[in-house]
Amino acid sequence: MTAAPVNAVVETERRARMAFARLTEPCSNPAREEILEYGYVAALTRVQSGASGLTPTVAGRAQELDLDREERATTLCGARVLIPGDAEWPVGLDLLEHPPHCLWVRGPGSLRELAEVGVAVVGARGSTAYGNHVAAELGYGLTAAGAVVVSGAAFGIDAAAHRGALAADGPTVAALACGVDRAYPAAHGPLLREIATGGVILSEAPPGSLPLRSRFLARNRLIAACSRGTVVVEAGRRSGSLNTAGWAVKLARPVGAVPGPVTSAASAGTNAWIREHAAELVTGTDEVMELVGRLGVDLADPQRGPERAEDALDPEELAVWEALSPTRARAVDRVATDAGLSIPRCQALLAGLEIRAFVEHDPAGWKRASSGGSH
Amino acid sequence: MTAAPVNAVVETERRARMAFARLTEPCSNPAREEILEYGYVAALTRVQSGASGLTPTVAGRAQELDLDREERATTLCGARVLIPGDAEWPVGLDLLEHPPHCLWVRGPGSLRELAEVGVAVVGARGSTAYGNHVAAELGYGLTAAGAVVVSGAAFGIDAAAHRGALAADGPTVAALACGVDRAYPAAHGPLLREIATGGVILSEAPPGSLPLRSRFLARNRLIAACSRGTVVVEAGRRSGSLNTAGWAVKLARPVGAVPGPVTSAASAGTNAWIREHAAELVTGTDEVMELVGRLGVDLADPQRGPERAEDALDPEELAVWEALSPTRARAVDRVATDAGLSIPRCQALLAGLEIRAFVEHDPAGWKRASSGGSH
Repeated sequence: MTAAPVNAVVETERRARMAFARLTEPCSNPAREEILEYGYVAALTRVQSGASGLTPTVAGRAQELDLDREERATTLCGARVLIPGDAEWPVGLDLLEHPPHCLWVRGPGSLRELAEVGVAVVGARGSTAYGNHVAAELGYGLTAAGAVVVSGAAFGIDAAAHRGALAADGPTVAALACGVDRAYPAAHGPLLREIATGGVILSEAPPGSLPLRSRFLARNRLIAACSRGTVVVEAGRRSGSLNTAGWAVKLARPVGAVPGPVTSAASAGTNAWIREHAAELVTGTDEVMELVGRLGVDLADPQRGPERAEDALDPEELAVWEALSPTRARAVDRVATDAGLSIPRCQALLAGLEIRAFVEHDPAGWKRASSGGSH
Repeated sequence: MTAAPVNAVVETERRARMAFARLTEPCSNPAREEILEYGYVAALTRVQSGASGLTPTVAGRAQELDLDREERATTLCGARVLIPGDAEWPVGLDLLEHPPHCLWVRGPGSLRELAEVGVAVVGARGSTAYGNHVAAELGYGLTAAGAVVVSGAAFGIDAAAHRGALAADGPTVAALACGVDRAYPAAHGPLLREIATGGVILSEAPPGSLPLRSRFLARNRLIAACSRGTVVVEAGRRSGSLNTAGWAVKLARPVGAVPGPVTSAASAGTNAWIREHAAELVTGTDEVMELVGRLGVDLADPQRGPERAEDALDPEELAVWEALSPTRARAVDRVATDAGLSIPRCQALLAGLEIRAFVEHDPAGWKRASSGGSH
C-alpha cells in the first residue's frame, strides 16, 4: 500500500483548505501571506495555536472550527470537496488572482470535463420575456451542439439558460454563492435538484453558508473560470452579470453579448458593451460557438495530424500563433494588434488554441506552448 | 449688365443637364463618355443631331424631348432645378461616382445648408412598432439637437423619422425615386406636402417620373450624399436601407445602426452590421450626434480661433490629422490604423474635420486641406 502516505498528505491538505474556506471569505483572504509562506497545513496549525496575528474574525471562526462536522455536512448533502491536483479540478481556476481554497461539488459529472466545454450564459435577474426566451434557446442550442451551460441558477436569465440545457437532456453547471446543500433562491429547489442529477452544482463556501452579497460577486469569477467564454443575454447598466463578463475579460476569455431593444433597460448594459467593443454581438448558438472556438477539436483523430504543429491552424489562428513568443508571455492586446485582430476575436482564438495545447497562459499573458500542439 | 452672358451660359448648361436627366437613368449613363469629352451642352447637340452613336433608348427619348415642357412642369409643381456650381448644390454629391445630372428641389430650405447638418435616418418599410418608435424618437431628438433628418419618405422607418422631425418643428429632407410632383407612396401625400412646407423634397428624376425599382437604389446614394452620416434603425438581411448605408461607407461617411431583438427579422440586418463592425451601435440621439461629429462647430466665433489650425483639434482628431498627408490622399482604413482608431470612428472624425475644412476628400481617400481649417 505505497499510495497510502501520498493520500494521507492530500487528505490533510484537503481538510486544511476546507478549514480556510470556513475561516475566510472568498477573494478576501487575510491568511494569504501565511498560506503562501507556510502552506495550508502549517498555516492552519499556526492559526489554531494563535501563533498567527490574523484578524479577530478569522481567530473567532478558528475557535468554532470543527472539521469533522464539516466533513459530515459534506457527506450528508452528497457533496465532494475538490482541491488543486485532483483530476476533477478545473484548470481555469488556477488562473484566478484569488483561486478558491477548495470547491464543494454535487452531481455525477466531472467538473473539469464539463468546464472544458463550458459556456457561461448569464444575465439579469430582472429579465424580460425576450431575454428569457433567448437564454432558453441558447441553453438548448449550446447543449445540443456539445457545449455545457455554466450559470448561477439565479432568477431570470440564469434559470432560463439552465432550463434550456436540461430540455436538451444535457448536463449543466450551476455555481452558487451559498453552500451546495442550500437552495437559493428557495423557489429554485427543484431546478437545483435537477441540475445535480445530471450535471454539477458547485460552491467555494462550505455547506450551510448563506448567500451573502460579497459571495455573489466572488461566485461570478468561478462561472467565468469554469467556462471557455461568457455570453451575457440581458443586463442593465450595473448588472452583476457584467461583473461575470469582467472576470471573463480578466481571464482572457471571450465575451459575447446579445443585443436588445434600445428601449429596454434590461438590454442597456449588453448594448453598451457591444457599442464599446467590450463584447462581441452574438445572435444565436452558431455565433456563440464561433466565439468560444471550435469545441471538441482536440478529440480529432491523432492519426491525421499534419507534419508541423502550426499546419493545423487556419489563417487567423496562424496570425495569433506568429504574434506569440515561445519564451516570453505577451498581453492579449499586443497579440491582437500584431495579429491584426480585434481583442475579443483574438481572445476567442487564444481560448481555442489553449484547449488544443498550442498556447499557454500565465498572469503576464500568452506564449506558445512548449509541446506545440496537442495532436 | 455684365452678368447676363454668364447667366445665359449657366442656364444653357442647366437645360442640357435637365435633358440628360430625361434621356438617361441614374447611375447608368450611356452618354457619360460623350459628356466628359464634349460637355453637357455639346453632348446634347450631338445626341439631338444623331451624331452620337448612343443606345436606342436614349435616341428614342431624345426624339420626344421637349425642354420647354420640362421647364413648365418644373414651374407648375413649384420646383427649382439645381446644378453643380449653384450655391444650393450639396457638396457631397460631387463625391459620387455617378453624380446626378441635376436635382429637382421643392421647399423653402437651402438644400446645401440642410445637408451640411444632415443625418440620414433610414430603415425597413416593413418595420415593427419598436423600429417606428425609435425612428420617431431619433427624428425628434436629432432635430431638437440642430441636425436635419434626411430620408426617403417611404413607409415604415423613413416616415417615422420624418414625422419625428416635423414634430420637433424642424426642416427635414426627403429624397424621392419619382418626380417631386408625385406622391409615392400615394398615402404619403400629406406627409410630403408637410415636408415641402418647411424643408426640401428632392429628386434627380424629372417631374412625372415613375418610382422604378432602379431609381430607388440610385435614390439611396442621394440620401447618403446629402448627409454627414447614416443611421439604420431597422433592416432585414437584404433591406434596401443597407444599400443606403453602403453608399455612406463608399462616401467615407460614418454609419450607425440601432440594435434590436435577435428574434426580430426586422433587426437581422442591423445586428449583423454591428456584429461585423460595419456599423457602430447607436442607442439614441446623443450617440448619433457623436457619430456624425460635432455639428455647428464651423459656426464658432472666428475671433477665438487658435494660433495654429490643428490647435483646435481634440486628441482623436489630432491623431487623424497627423495620419494624413498634405499632398497624397490616403484610404480611410490606413488612416484609421495609423491613428489607432476603428474605421467607423475614423470616418466620423474625418466627416467632422471635412465640414470644418481641415481635410479634403477625393476618390482615392483623404488628405489635409490646403487651407488647413475653416476658422
